[in-house]
Amino acid sequence: MKIITCVAPVNIAVIKYWGKRDEELILPLNDSISATLNIEHMCAKTTIMASSNFKENKIWLNGKEESFQNPRLSNCLKELKKRSQTQSDVINWNIHVCSENNFPTAAGLASSAAGYACFVYALAKLYEVEGDVTYIARQGSGSACRSIYGGWVQWHAGALKDGSDSIATQIVPASHWPEMRVVILVVSDSQKKNSSTNAMKRSAATSKFLEYRIKHIVPERTEKMIQAIKDRDFETFATITMKDSNQFHSVCLDTFPPVKYMNETSFIIVDLIHTYNEFRGSTKVAYTFDAGANACLYLLEEDVPEVISLIQNAFPTNTDHVEYFRGIPVTEQELSEELKKTINISKQDPGMLKYIIHTNVGEGPQILGENEHLLNDVGLPKK
Amino acid sequence: MKIITCVAPVNIAVIKYWGKRDEELILPLNDSISATLNIEHMCAKTTIMASSNFKENKIWLNGKEESFQNPRLSNCLKELKKRSQTQSDVINWNIHVCSENNFPTAAGLASSAAGYACFVYALAKLYEVEGDVTYIARQGSGSACRSIYGGWVQWHAGALKDGSDSIATQIVPASHWPEMRVVILVVSDSQKKNSSTNAMKRSAATSKFLEYRIKHIVPERTEKMIQAIKDRDFETFATITMKDSNQFHSVCLDTFPPVKYMNETSFIIVDLIHTYNEFRGSTKVAYTFDAGANACLYLLEEDVPEVISLIQNAFPTNTDHVEYFRGIPVTEQELSEELKKTINISKQDPGMLKYIIHTNVGEGPQILGENEHLLNDVGLPKK
Repeated sequence: MKIITCVAPVNIAVIKYWGKRDEELILPLNDSISATLNIEHMCAKTTIMASSNFKENKIWLNGKEESFQNPRLSNCLKELKKRSQTQSDVINWNIHVCSENNFPTAAGLASSAAGYACFVYALAKLYEVEGDVTYIARQGSGSACRSIYGGWVQWHAGALKDGSDSIATQIVPASHWPEMRVVILVVSDSQKKNSSTNAMKRSAATSKFLEYRIKHIVPERTEKMIQAIKDRDFETFATITMKDSNQFHSVCLDTFPPVKYMNETSFIIVDLIHTYNEFRGSTKVAYTFDAGANACLYLLEEDVPEVISLIQNAFPTNTDHVEYFRGIPVTEQELSEELKKTINISKQDPGMLKYIIHTNVGEGPQILGENEHLLNDVGLPKK
Repeated sequence: MKIITCVAPVNIAVIKYWGKRDEELILPLNDSISATLNIEHMCAKTTIMASSNFKENKIWLNGKEESFQNPRLSNCLKELKKRSQTQSDVINWNIHVCSENNFPTAAGLASSAAGYACFVYALAKLYEVEGDVTYIARQGSGSACRSIYGGWVQWHAGALKDGSDSIATQIVPASHWPEMRVVILVVSDSQKKNSSTNAMKRSAATSKFLEYRIKHIVPERTEKMIQAIKDRDFETFATITMKDSNQFHSVCLDTFPPVKYMNETSFIIVDLIHTYNEFRGSTKVAYTFDAGANACLYLLEEDVPEVISLIQNAFPTNTDHVEYFRGIPVTEQELSEELKKTINISKQDPGMLKYIIHTNVGEGPQILGENEHLLNDVGLPKK
């Protein structure tokens, strides 16, 4: 019997991945770049146990048993076995997998990236796989490959047909830009979710803008973004981040039938950030939106108190403070009358934001001690 | 003293105009195509009186006196005087202009196109101007040039620096496709309006997608659209109409900072139409959205009753029937259980639509009789 428990982080892209050139291998049409978020505030935690006693592979996700008959899961498993260096029998045993997120999945925050990164990372340790595993994580969920590293990460589209060069690499570690903060505004949203796999497929099939973006915009933007990160040039970083988020949603709208992820609240946030940046006379905050209504803000530590107050002002809440503010403790700051007057915030109805996560850029996946296992001695979920 | 009263129609583009290559002359970056709507249901009505007694030019818009010191107004006036064939003194006299719309301007339905078309058309009659006046109407409000003709109209971007080839021409008259109907869903919307002049300027300056659209998409689409109209090929017409509307809003989102016109209700309508077309197994209805949240549906006469019922089902109203349904009388049709079940319409809260206008494609501007004058004998508004 062998058991291991790992945690893996969430990542938020600043150059967006949208569209595959190979559905099966999950090969993207363009490079993408993301920051890996602090594992303490948001992560997937996975225990894998391999045992000669297990009659079949089993998986529990967030407390619910799911089918293991999932091609993405079995592809990852197969690839890892192929690469295993172990002398033991472990790769011939069945496995039990138990995984959970430390943040509500209902929030619509990409949890599959952290989940697959964690699964692949843990299994690679169990099977003693050496070297790059990002191309394996990619086959679980595209952006999962970026969660294999901490700091700032680039997922290279690659050019080879077998996808072996479509891997993630670290641009710089988290410590390179320690002042960077991330504020996630979890937006109340009732619209039915468009599966991003299907939506991407439809974009690739119908949007000429996507084709143009891939060929003529992303390559240059990626280079500029890498330089901005290396230079810790916040203004350039923030401007590209916002433009790329907008362009991704623009492509969604150019898709036929169109795909819509942002809602009214999302656009109120966009307006608020632009107005605030204008008031400050330079770009102090960047927004970015993934395949959902939640806003993710990138900003520097020194601007967090004012921006949090600004958001509190625009989006009142009835939720209690501890429940509402998660992650790094926030101190609010009285807004100046000038700011209030210039921005002329129109207060929204309470409840448009569910809660706020304040976090930073962090490290890649980690192995936890044996007290942390989610499976008991016989390989069943502890809870 | 000379007096004339005219009415001019609204037009709704199916290939969108977005972006100018010359701000002063109002020269567009691309060709556009529209249908002119029935003057009976939506129009601007304008009386112009010229008199040697008038000390200055005056204008009343929808009952309110406005300044005549408007470069667009004076440009149109200047151009018309230049082209005048009259032997009389009329062009040396000052004018009083009184103009009103027969539909609420608050609805956000482009009223400036009808207004400027009416002003230019009426003044052209007063000054005895022969030949094309669309290039003059264009200088009032770009899309006004398309309201100078009835039926289906193309506004040619033109290539000349002085804009003399940027004119509108009729593709086919209204009678060419008599079954075509237009249903305008006036959407309740509280968002502040983005001036389309400023938004266009920003798109032209920041959106690479707009540049691509102009060069590589609109020319081909325009050709296909003209053919579809000539062939009365509804499916092709409808598909291009929807794609072009989506792409215009996609460009708005790719603009930096982004521009947003459609709201949640607009997107519910988009979804409803796609679901309905899918249910019917072919494209029976097209939506298009201008610089606002209102939906304009193009469909054939035979499909109006079912589509109206579908909308009634999705968007309940508390407004009384007469107030709510305007234009051509509508007969609703019981929705089949199969349709209700397949579409699975989720009922919205009442009041998301303000009212519905049912109209068709109609004729260009017309001269009215003397009973219709909006100015009295001394050149003041009757009301």
